[in-house]
Amino acid sequence: MERLQEKIINEGRVLSPSVIKVDSFLNHQIDPILMKEIGEEFARLFADDGITKVLTLESSGIAPAQMTALSLGVPVIFARKRKSLTLRDHLYTSKVHSFTKQEINEISVSKDYLSSEDRVLILDDFLANGQAAKGLIDLVEQAGASVAGLAIVIEKGFQEGGQLLRRQGIRVESLATITSLVNDTITFKKEEAPFV
Amino acid sequence: MERLQEKIINEGRVLSPSVIKVDSFLNHQIDPILMKEIGEEFARLFADDGITKVLTLESSGIAPAQMTALSLGVPVIFARKRKSLTLRDHLYTSKVHSFTKQEINEISVSKDYLSSEDRVLILDDFLANGQAAKGLIDLVEQAGASVAGLAIVIEKGFQEGGQLLRRQGIRVESLATITSLVNDTITFKKEEAPFV
Repeated sequence: MERLQEKIINEGRVLSPSVIKVDSFLNHQIDPILMKEIGEEFARLFADDGITKVLTLESSGIAPAQMTALSLGVPVIFARKRKSLTLRDHLYTSKVHSFTKQEINEISVSKDYLSSEDRVLILDDFLANGQAAKGLIDLVEQAGASVAGLAIVIEKGFQEGGQLLRRQGIRVESLATITSLVNDTITFKKEEAPFV
Repeated sequence: MERLQEKIINEGRVLSPSVIKVDSFLNHQIDPILMKEIGEEFARLFADDGITKVLTLESSGIAPAQMTALSLGVPVIFARKRKSLTLRDHLYTSKVHSFTKQEINEISVSKDYLSSEDRVLILDDFLANGQAAKGLIDLVEQAGASVAGLAIVIEKGFQEGGQLLRRQGIRVESLATITSLVNDTITFKKEEAPFV
């Protein structure tokens, strides 16, 4: 998605060869028009998949998930993230290890909002090691629902999450795939030359 | 806002005379079409106020803030919530006491995204004691920016937040104001009779 790549080039800050911050339009400040375009693109990609719910993780997934769900005409659910859950009643729960923050979070969804009838589009802002995606897939499977695919805003193609998930036969659609951040240079998949 | 009141009546769960859960369309599962209508209504109410940013608090404020900002054509910022901040560099921070959860959170916004030029619409899902609103106003004031008003999805009119803020001269627009939850009966402001 060209406009997303431009935004990443113009506003992304490369903090290390594996970390890029996009706080100006996705993770802290949000560009609502870009979110609308992202939502429309995901809705187009998954238009024929019988999606009944969009599932995301608080907080950065919520804005693109809202726009995707609006375009698809289905509800969103955002899984909650906690250091540790005090109550597990009536919840599907899973553990997610964050490599960036070096912490383990429990994520959860109420049993009220996922059922075996659901065909779920999982949406997240980033895909890197795939830990969050694995946790969200686990929640969907606990509910006996099916995963239609993963809608990812930015994939770090140089980390193994995308490859692992695709090998499992899961459809992963990423709107921008970064193949390298080495030397403060953001390189995208399928680009002829890196943007500098 | 009639459709919001209907949703609250049909799907809200009164847990005590002061607590109502609206997890089916606002706080966990999200109704994206209702969020669009909420966004359009806030944009209409604040159309002439020169808003440059919409500021909300993760996580439940994000979807209605995204839709409001999309209608107004300005960015959203979501303040982050933490038990305690480890780094305060380059952040505006404030403390928010949650009576429901009996905990104190620190909320923060990067100094990159609020400046003295900004005219800010603060948006939140609920207004009860006004603690979150006070914290968000504090962040705006630290930046030297001005508060255009508060956009509240659901106000608990039987708690003092709204009254305190209005007495300070702050414009508060609530799309549904609940005046009582006694006897499991949801009563709205300006309704002739309570809905049961």
